[in-house]
Amino acid sequence: MSDTREQILEQIKVQGDLVRQLKAAKESKEKIDEEVSRLLALKAKLGGDAPPANQKFTLKTPKGTRDYGPQQMTLRQGVLDKIVQVFKRHGGEAIDTPVFELKEVLTGKYGEDSKLIYDLKDQGGEILSMRYDLTVPLARYLAMNKISSIKRYHIAKVYRRDNPAMTKGRYREFYQCDFDIAGTYDPMLADAECVKIVSEILDTLDIGDYVIKLNHRQLLDGMFQACGVPADSFRTICSAVDKLDKSPWADVRKEMVEEKGLDEAAADRIGEYVRLSGGAELVEQLLADEKLKAVPNAVKGLEGMQLLLKYCSIFGLEKRVSFDLSLARGLDYYTGVIYEGVLKGESASVASPAKTSQQNGEQASNEPATVGSVAGGGRYDNLVGMFDPRGKAVPCVGVSIGVERIFSVLEARAASSGLKLRTSDVEVYVASAHKGLHEQRLKVLNLLWDAGVKAEHSYKLNPKLLVQLQHCEEHQIPLVVVLGDAELAQGLVKLREVTTRQEANVKLEDLATEIRRRQQAA
Amino acid sequence: MSDTREQILEQIKVQGDLVRQLKAAKESKEKIDEEVSRLLALKAKLGGDAPPANQKFTLKTPKGTRDYGPQQMTLRQGVLDKIVQVFKRHGGEAIDTPVFELKEVLTGKYGEDSKLIYDLKDQGGEILSMRYDLTVPLARYLAMNKISSIKRYHIAKVYRRDNPAMTKGRYREFYQCDFDIAGTYDPMLADAECVKIVSEILDTLDIGDYVIKLNHRQLLDGMFQACGVPADSFRTICSAVDKLDKSPWADVRKEMVEEKGLDEAAADRIGEYVRLSGGAELVEQLLADEKLKAVPNAVKGLEGMQLLLKYCSIFGLEKRVSFDLSLARGLDYYTGVIYEGVLKGESASVASPAKTSQQNGEQASNEPATVGSVAGGGRYDNLVGMFDPRGKAVPCVGVSIGVERIFSVLEARAASSGLKLRTSDVEVYVASAHKGLHEQRLKVLNLLWDAGVKAEHSYKLNPKLLVQLQHCEEHQIPLVVVLGDAELAQGLVKLREVTTRQEANVKLEDLATEIRRRQQAA
Repeated sequence: MSDTREQILEQIKVQGDLVRQLKAAKESKEKIDEEVSRLLALKAKLGGDAPPANQKFTLKTPKGTRDYGPQQMTLRQGVLDKIVQVFKRHGGEAIDTPVFELKEVLTGKYGEDSKLIYDLKDQGGEILSMRYDLTVPLARYLAMNKISSIKRYHIAKVYRRDNPAMTKGRYREFYQCDFDIAGTYDPMLADAECVKIVSEILDTLDIGDYVIKLNHRQLLDGMFQACGVPADSFRTICSAVDKLDKSPWADVRKEMVEEKGLDEAAADRIGEYVRLSGGAELVEQLLADEKLKAVPNAVKGLEGMQLLLKYCSIFGLEKRVSFDLSLARGLDYYTGVIYEGVLKGESASVASPAKTSQQNGEQASNEPATVGSVAGGGRYDNLVGMFDPRGKAVPCVGVSIGVERIFSVLEARAASSGLKLRTSDVEVYVASAHKGLHEQRLKVLNLLWDAGVKAEHSYKLNPKLLVQLQHCEEHQIPLVVVLGDAELAQGLVKLREVTTRQEANVKLEDLATEIRRRQQAA
Repeated sequence: MSDTREQILEQIKVQGDLVRQLKAAKESKEKIDEEVSRLLALKAKLGGDAPPANQKFTLKTPKGTRDYGPQQMTLRQGVLDKIVQVFKRHGGEAIDTPVFELKEVLTGKYGEDSKLIYDLKDQGGEILSMRYDLTVPLARYLAMNKISSIKRYHIAKVYRRDNPAMTKGRYREFYQCDFDIAGTYDPMLADAECVKIVSEILDTLDIGDYVIKLNHRQLLDGMFQACGVPADSFRTICSAVDKLDKSPWADVRKEMVEEKGLDEAAADRIGEYVRLSGGAELVEQLLADEKLKAVPNAVKGLEGMQLLLKYCSIFGLEKRVSFDLSLARGLDYYTGVIYEGVLKGESASVASPAKTSQQNGEQASNEPATVGSVAGGGRYDNLVGMFDPRGKAVPCVGVSIGVERIFSVLEARAASSGLKLRTSDVEVYVASAHKGLHEQRLKVLNLLWDAGVKAEHSYKLNPKLLVQLQHCEEHQIPLVVVLGDAELAQGLVKLREVTTRQEANVKLEDLATEIRRRQQAA
């Protein structure tokens, strides 16, 4: 298939001269590198055992990213299919947006996390950044197309230059599965449905026990106000509170006081509130709290929580939700309800229990070990308005499923069970019993493909029968058609069940129908 | 849900002070922009009719990219499902790779097209580029994981900083659907199956008449040699020939002679060959050609074509394929068979016939109007070896379906037919006949969702019945459950068929079963 050795040697000589000329002419590094690569590629063609000079770089995917092989894709596709099923059960419509946006679209939306945005190189033209989530692109889409109501889902990769922790499912490139309800509606009806969707998804994926933590940005702001936080520090103090799922209170308090200049007394008052969690009774208790009662925002937030908890209880979620004052969510754009689905205890394991408890260190003794959240979201009523030329608001509420972490949990579980998923759907393998039958195989395959049967064969002219049968066993292919001159002369082929090894002669013209029949019976 | 006006005004004041301080302190533009955006976001919260100052940039997607709305997604998902079905029929396994690669992975693979690669900004760390196709990432994946045989498909977006022609389906961000067969096999068996896959896909998508053009890189190189092209100019002359589908021979000849310094006589000899196309008889004719006979590469290429055409004819593709010496393919990495699926005449229309013929100008009179190719691929036996530290080759052949162009053709067809696809799968709408029933609606919805029924309702507490029924008609929802106090008191609900308006009372406990029954009957 390839050039002769002489031709390649000639090409290498010519290419080498070109590189020397470019270097002599002090051409751009980029241009020289390009031609050097071509030269090395030519040298690689010569093969041989010595490492070719082209392999100067480590063969890897970019930091924090990974490939998905067939096993992982099969697992992943199964998870995504189940999630889409739930989204569709709630009337979701799919949309998709570009993987990058004008940089300005993302500016000012993510608070302290903005530093994690990937930018594209300025190659002349527009200044672009990779999307950081699917929420801001949705808001841009709604404003751009003047859409005032939609129930949409979006499954796509997003990009964050964060410190990856790949065994825990924290990547720099990862899938999000978002469901959002946009439109001007009555309070908490759409919000409660999002909570229901999270619980349906976690139930259908059967990954074990979980809790959906609920809080309200308006209550948080009211609480900050009641504790004496200045209004312009609400967001930055909120993003400190957000770290409570990973850091102990002492560290968070330190950040508030030392980095963010908050008054110590105010921090301590916050410390009292953020340790609280519960249900409807906690809302009652806080509605009676002297400091909170005095702040209209806090009261409005608590009334919202009350309504949300009522709807959640109609949806049968009383045992699944927990009103949790330490829940803050990092992003700037939330304005109302916020929530987070968290796996509990053993369901959250991505490593052996011993290892997990070691990693958690001190914390492990205080509370059950949990990995990060597997779902999160909230209400963001002002984000679309930020894009609309007239500032027209489209209230939105939505949820994002952290499928990458779910994959990690399920992959760890599959690995420890030793289970191997089938990664192809082939129903029939077409085999030769002896030499000289490859054209016959192609004819039979063509007949099967045209009848819609999933079929494959060896791409060797004369493969050994044993090798062909082994392939079927390894790949869990249920049926094999064995061709032989004796049968073909009578218009027959042998149809064999791989597991039972039972064989039967079938007329060639009936083959597709017979395979269909057996597949349906199986 | 939001802060009070006073609070926002206070926040604006504080934020405004911050921006002024940053400017006075000559902080980085990035930091100032970030805080200005936040200030403008706060101002936007105040709403009002005047355009907020934040809308400094045009609300758009990046050049050459587009959003997919629900209609387009429904069409697209239908097309991709059909393609995956064909891939699976041939035993394909799915993989996925990151959207960007280390820049070095892409360097030296795309010849003159390398300038179209999107680079990421150097933000400290690795130097990355967006993937340009799915073939180079596959080769990197195979070498990195030491995989020597696989039949994989990959459906994902790729990125090219080309001049977009969006009405023709040429984008900077676009989907590719690739199927590749890697492994050391006997000649043309895998290659012919790829041609079969292209024809099955174009048949199942039912987009009209098409031809699959075939050629062979070894024959092209042999032909260039026979015409007197120097060995080191093969690739650059090949990429000039590649332009023949868009430019007349005179322009291509000019590029060869004036830009690429080819001898005029050699160019003219090439011109004689590239006008040839046909079938097995053309191979015979060229095998007898005095100039080609003398070049071993040309003879090997022709013998390969002979075998490929034979296998294609066993697959029933004799009428579908055309051996075409003008087919060159732009990319550097092909080493054997190359092919391209092209829509013919009216099937290729993405605009009204009058317009198309005007756009084509002179050319229209010479040949039937065709849009670009909708599928393409070929054999690349040396690409994996370029990544392997020991240069170990894994021969590959594959095909890429140009779904974006297929979407354009199908979208144009759908638009002209006025057909509106259903974009959600909702089976039942739950409606209130009068006020005060929203909690009852939630109970009924919960019951339906838990039974797996796709159901939705209005997110208003007390929507008008007429508005609810209109929603069902507009969204083609087949059934509506109408709740009313009178029926609920007896444990009943009204089940109504939206098109016939037939109504029946159903016991609440039987509702899910009754809906299932009707859906199955429909």
